[in-house]
Formats: sequence, structure tokens, C-alpha cells
Amino acid sequence: MKTIHVDLGDRSYPIFISSDLIASKTAQTLLADSIRGKQVMIVTNETIAPIYLKKVEQLLAHEYQVSSTILPDGESFKNLDTLNQIFTSLLESRHNRTTTLIALGGGVIGDMTGYAAASYQRGVDFIQIPTTLLAQVDSSVGGKTGVNHALGKNMIGAFKQPQSVIIDIDTLQTLDKRQFAAGMAEVIKYGLIWDSEFFKWIEDNIVQLVSRDPDTLQYAIAKSCEIKAAVVAEDETEKGLRAILNLGHTFGHAMETFGNYSTFLHGEAVAAGMVMATDLSERLGWLETGITDRLKKLNQQLNLPNSSPEGMDMDDYINYMSVDKKNLDSDIRLVLLMGLGKAIITTEYDKVVFESTLKDYCS
Amino acid sequence: MKTIHVDLGDRSYPIFISSDLIASKTAQTLLADSIRGKQVMIVTNETIAPIYLKKVEQLLAHEYQVSSTILPDGESFKNLDTLNQIFTSLLESRHNRTTTLIALGGGVIGDMTGYAAASYQRGVDFIQIPTTLLAQVDSSVGGKTGVNHALGKNMIGAFKQPQSVIIDIDTLQTLDKRQFAAGMAEVIKYGLIWDSEFFKWIEDNIVQLVSRDPDTLQYAIAKSCEIKAAVVAEDETEKGLRAILNLGHTFGHAMETFGNYSTFLHGEAVAAGMVMATDLSERLGWLETGITDRLKKLNQQLNLPNSSPEGMDMDDYINYMSVDKKNLDSDIRLVLLMGLGKAIITTEYDKVVFESTLKDYCS
Repeated sequence: MKTIHVDLGDRSYPIFISSDLIASKTAQTLLADSIRGKQVMIVTNETIAPIYLKKVEQLLAHEYQVSSTILPDGESFKNLDTLNQIFTSLLESRHNRTTTLIALGGGVIGDMTGYAAASYQRGVDFIQIPTTLLAQVDSSVGGKTGVNHALGKNMIGAFKQPQSVIIDIDTLQTLDKRQFAAGMAEVIKYGLIWDSEFFKWIEDNIVQLVSRDPDTLQYAIAKSCEIKAAVVAEDETEKGLRAILNLGHTFGHAMETFGNYSTFLHGEAVAAGMVMATDLSERLGWLETGITDRLKKLNQQLNLPNSSPEGMDMDDYINYMSVDKKNLDSDIRLVLLMGLGKAIITTEYDKVVFESTLKDYCS
Repeated sequence: MKTIHVDLGDRSYPIFISSDLIASKTAQTLLADSIRGKQVMIVTNETIAPIYLKKVEQLLAHEYQVSSTILPDGESFKNLDTLNQIFTSLLESRHNRTTTLIALGGGVIGDMTGYAAASYQRGVDFIQIPTTLLAQVDSSVGGKTGVNHALGKNMIGAFKQPQSVIIDIDTLQTLDKRQFAAGMAEVIKYGLIWDSEFFKWIEDNIVQLVSRDPDTLQYAIAKSCEIKAAVVAEDETEKGLRAILNLGHTFGHAMETFGNYSTFLHGEAVAAGMVMATDLSERLGWLETGITDRLKKLNQQLNLPNSSPEGMDMDDYINYMSVDKKNLDSDIRLVLLMGLGKAIITTEYDKVVFESTLKDYCS
């Protein structure tokens, strides 16, 4: 088992990464170490529940009062109404302030369960058991939780750190191809923004990654969590540096909002968004040429998109990007690259080049 | 002007208390000192807006992009749906992370605006301008924010401290009699739990208080804020001591839930709940006899209730009290008195005496 420590003072927590973990004695011990009260609420969705819910319940049934909430599956349900289902379930089963919520599922489940934990009775504990690659390498580090609003993604939420994160790599074996590729987009991101060696390692190991070789996956996940943990430790609440983790996300959020969260998966939107950010960086002369092509090649091998959803035009981008959270006052702030492994956050870029890049990625 | 400092490390803030403040140059300066960005959203309700909204807007219009949201008035609207109206309004006017929310109104507006500020884009600033006595002496200190759930009061929320609180005593002159009395219940509470001298001062000055003499009010409000600030400074997130501020509230929340938040005002429920808690303390032999009678006399002078809403019985109490946030696991935790000015939080009381007290306060 590999253990990554996310270092955030009194909100520090461990991430445990291993195969064959989710139904094991080891997981039972790890969970017991993180649960402070006698009540546990497992939050999961209709897709995950049939595969893993019983297994996790069985680890806990002897020691705790265990309840569960099964939510509909999908980003389109990541809203206040679905969040309220968690609160209703907690209140109906009389969970009090010492309860622990367990997020069993992908990023949507993690985000909503974390925000429910931040908000229920003004804050209870939670543990993450992420079952998608995206959730394992992204939402498991950093404590960003929340829900979407009809007018913008992740506009409502809280910073809330979990007690621990338990990652079983075997959960990725049953993950569908699109979801897996979407997670790989974030893995690639860590190379682009922070670690050129890791980017090259991904290129060298893309075949093993696509075939989901467990050892290769364990390395990629641990490395991704390490990089994200390093960034978050320096800037927990995104006052500055942390925003580099949003490479491709400003473009990507616009694509997701345009498609009402149903055209592209989050990771797919990020993949296409990173291509646009990288290409813009090259066009501005800030980044050596060739990186965009290497990124596009990786995306192709993973069947990830390299351009905008059909029908989306430049005005859609401008409109949706200008309500993005990263905009201080009114300029559109972007994460761009000054080199492979070197990201910056800026509003100081040539707006003409920006707009022509947008146009070239619209059909 | 009287200034109280709420001492919470890097979340410390000042409370300014004065007559003739809300439309003054002084208020303009105080606001400017607390606003860090260029955008401001004033959140108020249909009752307060016609009286004060323009005045506050005028203080800000020259310096900031000012928007406003007018919510329906009343505790029954303190829910996720109304909260979402604030988010919609913020997004429609394109408010970003540097915006400041201003809560202009009573406790419901303060609680919802504070929680909206805690949650919008995972946290923006907010300022309180409380216009009811209850909000001035209760919600203005301590950072408890949130909304109700159909199954329980204040079950969803966050701890969120304001940048500053601006209290204009003159707003109390137009406050209706019931609302004023409801606020006085909390003022009396501070005497009961913390300061026997202050309790006696209230008894001695009850006539001036009822007639809303400004100097007497200023003293009562400042003293109340000071006591609450002292308690909160020791225990910001209610791990222990802070729960004494809930004297009467466990009984009171049950009454409010029973009446679907429409029979008793919050302060009225607290007034009746404090009588029950005080009486129970006397019956247990923990509190000198006579305090309950003195409290009932104060309540009478203020036209506050001394017993349960009609039709409520013991089972209703047991049922609603057992989902209260103060219950660790399953026992009903109560705030009781060990003397005038000395409160404790405990589950260790005689359950037979507890139930017979409940019965005696049901019709």
C-alpha cells in the first residue's frame, strides 16, 4: 500500500492507495481509525451501489449505526435538490453532529457528500472512497466540495477536508472507457502544469495506462495525488498558486455549461480545454512549439476530444467564461503555460490571439 | 458610538452600536473599511426594503457596483430554495469571489446571507446591518449561519464570521411589539446564563426597555454582545461551552418545529423554553427557587409566553428534541442552570423530573 500525506496543519489527512482494498480487513481498520462517532452515512449512486455498497456496509455494520443514501448518477444531479436528499436522509435516520459521511463513488458523489458534510449541522466528518480515476486523482486532494447552479458550475460550495481517502485501484477495472479517459485528462494535467518528467513518463507508459496495468496505475495515481497535495499545501483556499490546477478548466467549464453538463464529461471538457490553453500559450510565444501536438496525440490515444462541442461558438465561450470563479472583477483569468511543467495564472495576454484561438476550436 | 470587539484570531471583527447611524457618513466610512472588492450585494426582505434599502444603497452607489436581492419575509422562507434566490441573483449580476454581501434585516436575513456568503464560490465576505433586536444581540455575534430543513431548524449551515456589524438602535423604534419582545428574550438569556448582575439590571430597567429608551437599549445591546462575544471567543465552533447560549433553545426549537415556524417567533419559543429549563433546574434542586417566577414576571411584562403552544404534548417534545443538534448520539442534552448566571450542558438529569416538567407545560 502506498500512503500520501496531504499536509494542511490540523486539517492534514492520509490517502491510502492499493489494489484489493475496498472489502478488506485493512480497509476496516483504516475506516475505524477515521471514524470518531457511532454513526455512519454512506452516500453513493445508483451505478456504484450494486457493486460496492454491501461490501462497505459489511465492514462497518458490527461497530456503527450505518445508513445509506443512493443518489441518481450524473453531473446533472449535482445540485441543491439532490444535496437536500442527503440532509433528509441524515435527519430521517437521526444522525447527529458526531456522524461521519462516507463518499462512495466518483467526483460528483465526493463533491456533494463533502459539501453535505461541511453543511450538515454546520459541519460533520467525512471520508472518501473514490471509485473513478478522476475522483482518485482530483477530488481526493484539496477539499473543494460543492454543487452546480443552473447559471454556473461549482458556484455553491465549501472547502472541506476529509478525515482520510481510501483508493482501491481495482475499482478502475470495471470503470467504463469514457470515464477512465476523462480521469486520465487530469493525470496528464499534472505533468503539464508541474512536472515535465511525469508528462514524458505518461507518454512512455500510455499503452500500459490504457490497458489499466495495476502497477502503472498505482504510480500514476500516487504521483498525481503528490503533485496536487504539494500545490494545495501551499494555497489551501485558492488565493493564488492553487488556481494553476485549473489548466483547461475555464475553457472546459464553458463547454460543460454550454452542453448543460451532458455533452462532455468533466474530464473530456478539461482535455479539450487544455489543448486550447496549450495552443494559446504557444501562439503567444510563451511555450515551445510541439507541446500541443504531443498533448493532442495523448488525447487521441485515450479517445479524448481535441476541440469544442458541436455548435458552440466564440460568443458562447466569452459569455460562459466571464462568470467563472477565477475572474477577479471582470477580466477573464486564464491558466497558461510558460514551459512544459510551468503554469501561470494571468489576465495579461493578447485578447486578439485569445479570440482567434477560440474561433479555431469552434466548428 | 460604542464598539465591541469579537476576538477570534484572524476572523476577529468589530460591532459598532449607535443611534442615527444607518444613513450617516460614519456608516459610509465603516462600510468602506470592511469592503475589499468593487462589488456589493445587499440582501434584505420585503418588509425592510421600503424603509432602509435606498439609504444603504446611497451610501455605496458612488464607490461600488451595487446589486440587491429582496427576499420574502419570515422564518418559513429560511430554506434552501430561498437561499438559491441569492445565488441566482449573484450570478445574474455576475458577482465574483471578491464581492461583499450585506445582510440588511433581521435574524433570518442574517443567517441566510451569512450562509450564502460562506457558500458562494466557496466563500466571499459579508457585513451585517441587523435591524431587529434579536439579530442585534444574537446573530450579530458568533458566525452561526444557515437555513432550516423541513425536518429540523438550522440543520444546514456554516460557521462564517462577518467583516463587521453595524447596529443602528433607531431601527428598533419601528420594530413591532412582538418582534421587540422576542429580542428581549435573548437579552434576558445572557443574564440567566452568565451575569446575575445584568439579570437584576434588566429587572430594574424593564420599564425603560419596554418603552425603548435609546440609552437603556444601547447598554442592553452592548452588554449582550459582550457576553456572547466572551462565550464565543472561548469556543467558536461549539465543541463545549458555547452550547450554554442555547438555554431554552432545545425546548424552543421543538415548539417552533411543532408550530411549523409560524405559531411562535424564535424569541417567543426561547422565552417559554427558558422558563421550562429554569423550572426543571429548580425541580432538580440545582437552582435556588424563585428564579423561574422572576423570569415569568419579566416575560409577562414583555408579553412573552410562559408555556407551550396549544395542542403540543410531551411526545411532541421528545420527538422533536431528539433530533436537536446538541444531542451527541442519542441522549437529549439540555442547558440547565446551577445558579443565576451559571449554566451547564448535561445529559445527566433525572428523566422522570424532566418528563413531569414537560407535562406541566403542556395544555
